[in-house]
Amino acid sequence: MINRVVIFSILVSLISFVVAFYFYRWIIKKDVENPRVKEISGLIAQGSRTFLKKEYTILARFTVIVAVLIFLFLPKPLWSSTIQDNLVIAISYVLGTIFSAVAGVVGMHVATQANARTAEAATYDIERSFMSSFRGGAVMGMSVVGLSTLGVVVLFWFTKDSGALLGFSFGASSLALFAKAGGGIFTKTADIAADLTGKVELGIPEDDPRNPAVIADNVGDNVGDCAGMGADLFDSHVASLSAALVMAVTLGIKEVFVVFVFAILGLLASIIGVSSAKMGKNQNPTNALNLSTYSTSFIFLIISGIATYIFDIHWRLWVATIIGLLVGVIIGIISDYFTNDQYEPVQDVAKMSKTGPAFTILDGMSYGFLSVLPALIGIALASMLSYYVAAPLGEGYALFGIALAAVGMLSIVGMIISNDAYGPIVDNARGLVEMCDLGEEALRITDSLDSAGNTVKAVTKGFSLGAAGLTVISLLAAFMTSVNESAVELGLVEMGQLFITHFDVMNPSVLFGLLVGTAVPAVFSALLMQGVTRNAQRLVDEIHRQFDEIEGLKEGKEGVVPDYNRCIEMATEGALKELVPAGAFAILMTLAVGFFGGVLAIGGFLVGNILSGLLLALFMSNTGGLWDNAKKYIESGHFGGKGSDAHKAAVIGDTVGDPFKDTAGPSINTQITVVSLVASLFASVFLLYSLL
Amino acid sequence: MINRVVIFSILVSLISFVVAFYFYRWIIKKDVENPRVKEISGLIAQGSRTFLKKEYTILARFTVIVAVLIFLFLPKPLWSSTIQDNLVIAISYVLGTIFSAVAGVVGMHVATQANARTAEAATYDIERSFMSSFRGGAVMGMSVVGLSTLGVVVLFWFTKDSGALLGFSFGASSLALFAKAGGGIFTKTADIAADLTGKVELGIPEDDPRNPAVIADNVGDNVGDCAGMGADLFDSHVASLSAALVMAVTLGIKEVFVVFVFAILGLLASIIGVSSAKMGKNQNPTNALNLSTYSTSFIFLIISGIATYIFDIHWRLWVATIIGLLVGVIIGIISDYFTNDQYEPVQDVAKMSKTGPAFTILDGMSYGFLSVLPALIGIALASMLSYYVAAPLGEGYALFGIALAAVGMLSIVGMIISNDAYGPIVDNARGLVEMCDLGEEALRITDSLDSAGNTVKAVTKGFSLGAAGLTVISLLAAFMTSVNESAVELGLVEMGQLFITHFDVMNPSVLFGLLVGTAVPAVFSALLMQGVTRNAQRLVDEIHRQFDEIEGLKEGKEGVVPDYNRCIEMATEGALKELVPAGAFAILMTLAVGFFGGVLAIGGFLVGNILSGLLLALFMSNTGGLWDNAKKYIESGHFGGKGSDAHKAAVIGDTVGDPFKDTAGPSINTQITVVSLVASLFASVFLLYSLL
Repeated sequence: MINRVVIFSILVSLISFVVAFYFYRWIIKKDVENPRVKEISGLIAQGSRTFLKKEYTILARFTVIVAVLIFLFLPKPLWSSTIQDNLVIAISYVLGTIFSAVAGVVGMHVATQANARTAEAATYDIERSFMSSFRGGAVMGMSVVGLSTLGVVVLFWFTKDSGALLGFSFGASSLALFAKAGGGIFTKTADIAADLTGKVELGIPEDDPRNPAVIADNVGDNVGDCAGMGADLFDSHVASLSAALVMAVTLGIKEVFVVFVFAILGLLASIIGVSSAKMGKNQNPTNALNLSTYSTSFIFLIISGIATYIFDIHWRLWVATIIGLLVGVIIGIISDYFTNDQYEPVQDVAKMSKTGPAFTILDGMSYGFLSVLPALIGIALASMLSYYVAAPLGEGYALFGIALAAVGMLSIVGMIISNDAYGPIVDNARGLVEMCDLGEEALRITDSLDSAGNTVKAVTKGFSLGAAGLTVISLLAAFMTSVNESAVELGLVEMGQLFITHFDVMNPSVLFGLLVGTAVPAVFSALLMQGVTRNAQRLVDEIHRQFDEIEGLKEGKEGVVPDYNRCIEMATEGALKELVPAGAFAILMTLAVGFFGGVLAIGGFLVGNILSGLLLALFMSNTGGLWDNAKKYIESGHFGGKGSDAHKAAVIGDTVGDPFKDTAGPSINTQITVVSLVASLFASVFLLYSLL
Repeated sequence: MINRVVIFSILVSLISFVVAFYFYRWIIKKDVENPRVKEISGLIAQGSRTFLKKEYTILARFTVIVAVLIFLFLPKPLWSSTIQDNLVIAISYVLGTIFSAVAGVVGMHVATQANARTAEAATYDIERSFMSSFRGGAVMGMSVVGLSTLGVVVLFWFTKDSGALLGFSFGASSLALFAKAGGGIFTKTADIAADLTGKVELGIPEDDPRNPAVIADNVGDNVGDCAGMGADLFDSHVASLSAALVMAVTLGIKEVFVVFVFAILGLLASIIGVSSAKMGKNQNPTNALNLSTYSTSFIFLIISGIATYIFDIHWRLWVATIIGLLVGVIIGIISDYFTNDQYEPVQDVAKMSKTGPAFTILDGMSYGFLSVLPALIGIALASMLSYYVAAPLGEGYALFGIALAAVGMLSIVGMIISNDAYGPIVDNARGLVEMCDLGEEALRITDSLDSAGNTVKAVTKGFSLGAAGLTVISLLAAFMTSVNESAVELGLVEMGQLFITHFDVMNPSVLFGLLVGTAVPAVFSALLMQGVTRNAQRLVDEIHRQFDEIEGLKEGKEGVVPDYNRCIEMATEGALKELVPAGAFAILMTLAVGFFGGVLAIGGFLVGNILSGLLLALFMSNTGGLWDNAKKYIESGHFGGKGSDAHKAAVIGDTVGDPFKDTAGPSINTQITVVSLVASLFASVFLLYSLL
């Protein structure tokens, strides 16, 4: 059975690559006609490469160092372990980073090709423009999920080793931490600096080519929202599969293949959904995108049901998976309510902005806080229901049920990524239309596509946060099983006995971990946000310098161009420097708690981290999205429109929201996963060397 | 032994009343000479009475209804319980509300007398002015702690019943919820509305008597910061003592009297500290206040050590208590670092404000997030160390150790309240100096006293949050013991057996509770903040109406006065209406989770609630304090001073911070306690009637 499933998995992964390649050719074969569009999109593509090259250079060094450390110390220090065990994890780790990096490069390359085509298509009609951007995003979606499925399947087939899976997943998530947090700092640095100097100080429009940071701003959309988000979801997908597999292996669950079956069918559903997506005449782009998500979910529901019947999978496992999927959809819809300008929250915040920026902030934050309740209840119900549904199948199945719910929620991740990567492409296209004067109608079209991107982003973010929540809960279970496995190996307990059976909140070590773990996502976000403001201030200084020193730039004299590249380089260097404290803090705190309090403290630490991480990530993502759309709502003519006091207040809200929704909020996601994986990998080491 | 301790407790409580009365006479015997000061302070006193009368009228009805419900349903529904059991809890509940209300009335009455004396004394010298305000605060401190100690001691002596203690504590905390959240909404409603219409729209100074909301603003300081905070700390103190006693009784710990001994010695130390406090020549008022806190702590350390020796108390119990005290002091010092303008955070936020309000907000929030780490580590260490220190004494002692740490942290609460109540008095005095034109020198003196009040407030808030954290952890233990006790009574397990021994985070019910509980403080804060903005907008409309309809008011024509009372009434009605959703939400969620998921879900729920409650309360209190002081720092002449762009940005930060630090942040404290007590009281009911 498992062999057939593996072969089938590889096949479907390859199909996804074929689809990606087909879309890529479809995009590429249209020539970019307008020379100005060609030039500027070339600058953006080049800037994105500059960023990636710099990032990956640093990452490569980091990866080598970490790989060596892993080889020396994990799963146990080399002197009390075998070379082979340590080597497998180290190699898997390196593979995880490489796979994720490849997905990032591919996605970003296509995105920087699709933006120009989307911009030019907008001079014809909205359908053509929509398809260019959507298919550009789909290349990313298909490549990412194809690679993650292929990587996990092949690795599992060869090694059947939970250490290898955790190592691969750790590789993916440490790359995601760089890509998401680094990219997030970069994009908001450029965005804020460009806005502050351009819109606020000089009163020139967004995307005005005189602004030295304008290309960096467009590059930012690609590196933060496109490559960063891709790495993030690659990481979540790998983590959800790995957690389920590790649990299945260590708990001795015989239906391991179910994980692959559902993962592949999800990919298949996404392939069908992506290939059949189109925007009908007179259709609204938001609806087109949402429709494709819902139809993909529906397709998955049907084909996974059929597969359950054919392969004689127990219906309880299927139900656990579908619970995850449905809760994901519900969380998405709730995020949509709080960030879509058709509903009360956005409109109310826009209205409050008339009274001044303090009320934009207070009211927006209030709605952000409210938005966490339904999402957390959703995750709570999903984990509880999937637990109870799977429990009757026997020991260990209950936890496996939660892991399957996470797999189910992420089953349609190919579709999610496609929709998400659509966002930065249309955002870029809008910039190109403005910078190259492609006309009012094209601007109207790309504005409408861009606004759809914003709304859909909220939905997909809700989805990925929910999935991260469930994944990390199953990683916690994976951590416990790792500890018990290690305890047997280390001779702390006899074979068949459990070293720990539970994490009791009244245990002082667990309680200690809970309290400290709660603080970590808050501090992590704070460090990232301070990184953004520090980096933005440096960039503002550079922009001022260029305006002062380059003659004729401010006045827009013909032929005078700013030094775009200098801004990109500065923002890149700054971003990569600023992410170090945040990343190092999260990992070092995990190690400190583990060495001090042992595995029980780590259990508490992970739970505290998950709880406050979900709380803050949901709060920040939703509040940020809400402020962005409240600003857009006012700009579309409400409460005085552009330039009114309400608009000024809303712009302040949006600026606060930028690092919320694009830097700190989504990076917390990755931080939680990284910390959980570090804990699982260090299980043996903590057992051997902790203070308490 | 216990009888002697009880008599001694009553004695010391009475001494604290004598000291309070002595200070009251000391203040009252100075006549208020300036007729204008007399008039306006009379208006403030009258407005405060208006608020309290309205609040207590509603509260009285609420109390009667809840008392009847308690009588009918708690600890078990009347049909499966005895009348006596239910009656004891109901009566204790009513006593709890009455004691707390009396403390509030006394404190507020004195505060509204002391403000005028402080203002007049400021025309002579700073020492005299300081003493008037400090002793005014001390009356509150002594009355509150005298009453809470007396109440708990007498109740315990008569009933020896844990239900009675929980009922008394629930009475205190439900009153605190009204006083703190209602007062918090009132004070920020008035503050924001007065600022928006006065400072922002008309450009008239703060505390200008033309502003119809100016008296309401001064009343707000009294009802929110003085009565509200007093009720809050009354509640925390009662809860810490009750939790320790309930645990001692149910776990069969023989050293029950230790709780009283340390509580009384703490009160005694506070009496000595308060009586000997004074401000030396050329001393800075902040140092004078902090010195009195530290010296009180030191006195407690010494006399509790001596008592430990004399009464032959085991040194481990003393150490557990002292750990709490020390961690409280450390948390206070950390809060001070993040909110005092002598250190980097405030100065950095002030500097960032030059770049605009978005950066004031982002940078302030970043520091706020950073500030939670040391405090949470402190609470984590305190609970862990006190657990391990007490554990060797036998079964049950470990948890009792945590309870003693909470008692230790709150031992000097009399001093804490005195310092805290000092704040609104000097704030009021500053207002009186401005409104009555008492001169530049008096303004300078009251400004300096006010700024000290702000800084010290941060310290005392840190203290009370830390104490709440530990108290609620011991309430969680109290909940577990309540459940086990009820399970035996209900015949679910046999005598001597435990129904639940732990709350495992991997249990689906516990996990469900954890996730839902995490969302509660966020939603609770959001509802309060929205209450403030809604209420403020209503008041702004009323102020506009008065400016429009009362002729000559805007121009400051001689003899024209606004309708101050209308503003006070509106703000009061609005505040009491707006607090209902928040309070009801927290209590109903607790009941919903309990009836749905049973006692295990409630265990998780309480932990999630504590973790996210501490996180958000620390974040909001510290961020709010930081923004307030960053504004003051700029006003004192930095970065362009008053009227500069940096100042405007800082004012926006301060407006956002107002409901953070004075409404939502400190109310979360009470919310956590209320929820924990509701859970403990409903333990039997959940065992009988839960769905799962």
